[in-house]
Formats: sequence, C-alpha cells, structure tokens
Amino acid sequence: MPSSRIDPASDRSVYRQIADILRGKIESRELPPGGQLPSESSIVADYEVSRVTARRALSVLVTEGLVTAEHGRGWFVRRQPPVRRLSSDRFARRKEGKAAFTVDMEANKRAFAVDVLYIGRGAVPAGAAEKLGLDADAEVIIRRRRYLAEGQPIEYATSYIPLDIADGTPIAEPNSGPGGIYARMEDQGFVFERYDEEITARMPSEEEARILTLPVATPVLHLVRTAVASGRPVEVCDTVMDAAAFVLFYSLPAR
Amino acid sequence: MPSSRIDPASDRSVYRQIADILRGKIESRELPPGGQLPSESSIVADYEVSRVTARRALSVLVTEGLVTAEHGRGWFVRRQPPVRRLSSDRFARRKEGKAAFTVDMEANKRAFAVDVLYIGRGAVPAGAAEKLGLDADAEVIIRRRRYLAEGQPIEYATSYIPLDIADGTPIAEPNSGPGGIYARMEDQGFVFERYDEEITARMPSEEEARILTLPVATPVLHLVRTAVASGRPVEVCDTVMDAAAFVLFYSLPAR
Repeated sequence: MPSSRIDPASDRSVYRQIADILRGKIESRELPPGGQLPSESSIVADYEVSRVTARRALSVLVTEGLVTAEHGRGWFVRRQPPVRRLSSDRFARRKEGKAAFTVDMEANKRAFAVDVLYIGRGAVPAGAAEKLGLDADAEVIIRRRRYLAEGQPIEYATSYIPLDIADGTPIAEPNSGPGGIYARMEDQGFVFERYDEEITARMPSEEEARILTLPVATPVLHLVRTAVASGRPVEVCDTVMDAAAFVLFYSLPAR
Repeated sequence: MPSSRIDPASDRSVYRQIADILRGKIESRELPPGGQLPSESSIVADYEVSRVTARRALSVLVTEGLVTAEHGRGWFVRRQPPVRRLSSDRFARRKEGKAAFTVDMEANKRAFAVDVLYIGRGAVPAGAAEKLGLDADAEVIIRRRRYLAEGQPIEYATSYIPLDIADGTPIAEPNSGPGGIYARMEDQGFVFERYDEEITARMPSEEEARILTLPVATPVLHLVRTAVASGRPVEVCDTVMDAAAFVLFYSLPAR
C-alpha cells in the first residue's frame, strides 16, 4: 500500500516524497511513456494527503519535464526525451544533402515530418528587417513550416530571405532540394561565414500554443538565427520550440 | 479618448489593437519603466471591451517581455531590457581579472551584485557527477551564488568542482580572486579547451521562483556548462536564469 512509503517525520516534504515515488515508477517503466499518472483524487486517497499536496507532487514532475498536464484529461508520462540539438554539426552536413533538422532527428533516432505552412512573398517583420539590413515592410521570401517528431509538433520556424537571393530560385519553392536553402545559396556562390543565434524563453502566444499543441504551463524556447555568408546576412530564421522537447547544445572553444 | 483608436472593422483583433496602443505608450515612455499599466477594469471601461479581451491584451505584452504581472498588484512595465549574454567573449576576459558575469554586466551597462549563498564541501548531484566522471555522491567543492542586476535577482548558479582541483585553494574561498575560479585553475597550469553549454527552458520550481523573486508565469532558462581543461572536465556550473532577464547569444563559425 503506497501510503506506507511516506515518512511524515522526514525533513523531505510529503509532496516531494510522493513525487519521488512517482518518479521511481516512471524510471522503472511501471508507468510507461505515454501512460497516465494517478489522478489527484487517487493520490489524495492512496497517500491520505490534501488535494493541494497531490497537485504539488504532480507539478514537481511537470517541472522536471517527465510529465505533461493535459487540460481536462489528467497527467501523462512524456513520450520521449528531449531532442538534443547540436549547434556545431547540424549545418555542416548539407554537403551530404541533409538539412539541419534532418541531422538533428537522425542523431536522436526520431521519425520526423515537416508541414509546409507557407512559402512565398510577404512583408518582413521589423526585427528581421533590421538584422537583414532591409527597410521595414520590404518584401522577402518567407518560408514557414512546422516540424514534427514522432507525430508531435515540436518546432515552428519562419525564414526570411532577401528577394535578390531567393526570388525565382528553388529557395522560393516548397522543396528547395538536397541540403536545403543553404545548399542552394552555396550553388549561387555564397560562402557561409557564421550563424548568430539569439535564445530567449517565454510563455507561448495563443497561436504558438495552438500550432505546437502545447500542454498548459509549457514555455517555449525562441531562437532567432542570422546566417551570414560572403559578408552579408542572407537569412533570418525565427524558431519557436516546445521547450520540453529540446536541449540546445553549444560547444564553445576556449581562446 | 482611447476607444476612438479601436477599429472594429479591422482584421486585427481588438485585443491586439489594445496591445498595440499600450506597446506604443511603453515605447514612447508615456508608460515609463516600472510604471503601472491601466488595470483590467479601466481597460474594460476605456475601450468598451470584455474583461477577457482586456486580459488578453495585457498578456500579449507579458509574452513579449515588455510587461510583468505582479500577483494581486497589477501589471507593470519591465524596468530593464534583457541582458545580452555573449557566449564568445565572456570567458576570454579573465586575463584582465574579470569573471564572466562581470563582463556581461559591463557590456550591458548594469549595476550588479553577487550574493554568496554557499561555498564549501558537499555531495555532487547525479547529473554533474556523470559529466565530471565522478561517483554519485562523491564530495566536491560547491559554489552557490545569486546574481543581481539593478538590485533584482536574475540568475542563480551552482558550480561543482572536483576536490583535487579546488580543496584548500582560493577556489574554495568566497572570494576566489581576480578573474574568478577559471583564472585560479590556470594558475595551477590548466589550459582551457572548451565550454560545453546545454540549454533548456521550463517553469521554475517553488524554490527557484523564491530565490529569483519571479513573477507568476515566468519561465526559467536552465543552462548547464561543463568546462574542459587539459583534457578533463574541471567544473560543472548549473545556472537557472529569469528567462525574461536574458538573451543568450551564440556566434557559430561556419565550417
């Protein structure tokens, strides 16, 4: 009987002890990936605690990224560990015909898919205009797509590319060909110099939560990359990621 | 009168139009840093909208990082823009006697302070043990401190350093001297090779929210750095940051 494992004399709080027990069941796979955790009510009954204590125990596991709360349905063990996104290698494989997201998914052994949401002309937003050295509202090629791992949306990315680089080329087509748009820019003679990435985290907008089908209380990572080739910014890519789905990895050489 | 600026025929939703107006007042400093925004009730009255619409308008600005919600007190303009944390330069300045956080704060022109929370021996947690190649629960030197900018806690960092490097040296002292602990390791002959950084974002634990005095609905950035010198991991630093207070910047050379 579960309540026998709660030690009321411990200096570890009761809700943390319950979280420890549930974590153990997740680690042992007694509660398997995708499996439903005990409801608040059954924790209240099994451990003889208040509803507040039950909810705190569950929220510890949500915070640790082990569990997701699905509004109105209950608590579930996350299906998959976060994807490790390797900064250093992901752009280098286009010579093998592989785009960066493909590299990530293969390294993490995930089945993946891409939903193309929009490819075409549009007005550049203010932040990207500044980074690209364009006038506000200048026309650019916009590539907006959603990435899924194991059927679950995890990332929503929008690229902005100046017209003189992209218009009338495969960069403006839904399928930009092997190696993706950076490979097409190299076909034009661009030599890539660096990728500048700015990372923030925040709560999602309603639109982002809908597109990424985020459970409640899940923040997003917001990554804005500026690709610089042959002395000029050639793309700004604005990416919103389900924060629970990613670990971003950077290896910085000491100088 | 404010309601004259809402266009009910616009294809931009009413709550976004209200957010646009308030954002304009923040940008023009009509609503200054630290200033209180109109309450939900006054937005309801001024713009003749529902309470839900008023709350959505305010939450757009929270999501954008311009405004913080202080529980029970209302909405306030954030006092300061996020700190840009420059990955490439921040470790390179210890030869001038400057630790990384000092470099960040000076680059961002912020007054800063450090609270030392704990310096001494302790058991290494499992994740750091694995990265340092130590047994679980091995003893290490632990340095736990809280960083403040303009009097506001923004970062909470804990370093774990193997005993054979740190014990009995200035690395185990509250003030580790000019350039910080990495400079002291260099004094011992260590040559730094790289810093590996892993970034995730999530909601804070109760303890983290308390230490960082976070407003509700503010996620944290969680950054775990492993410093590698002379072929071995010499430190794991586990950092929890107020997500609204930081932009992490990485510049990756193309290869």
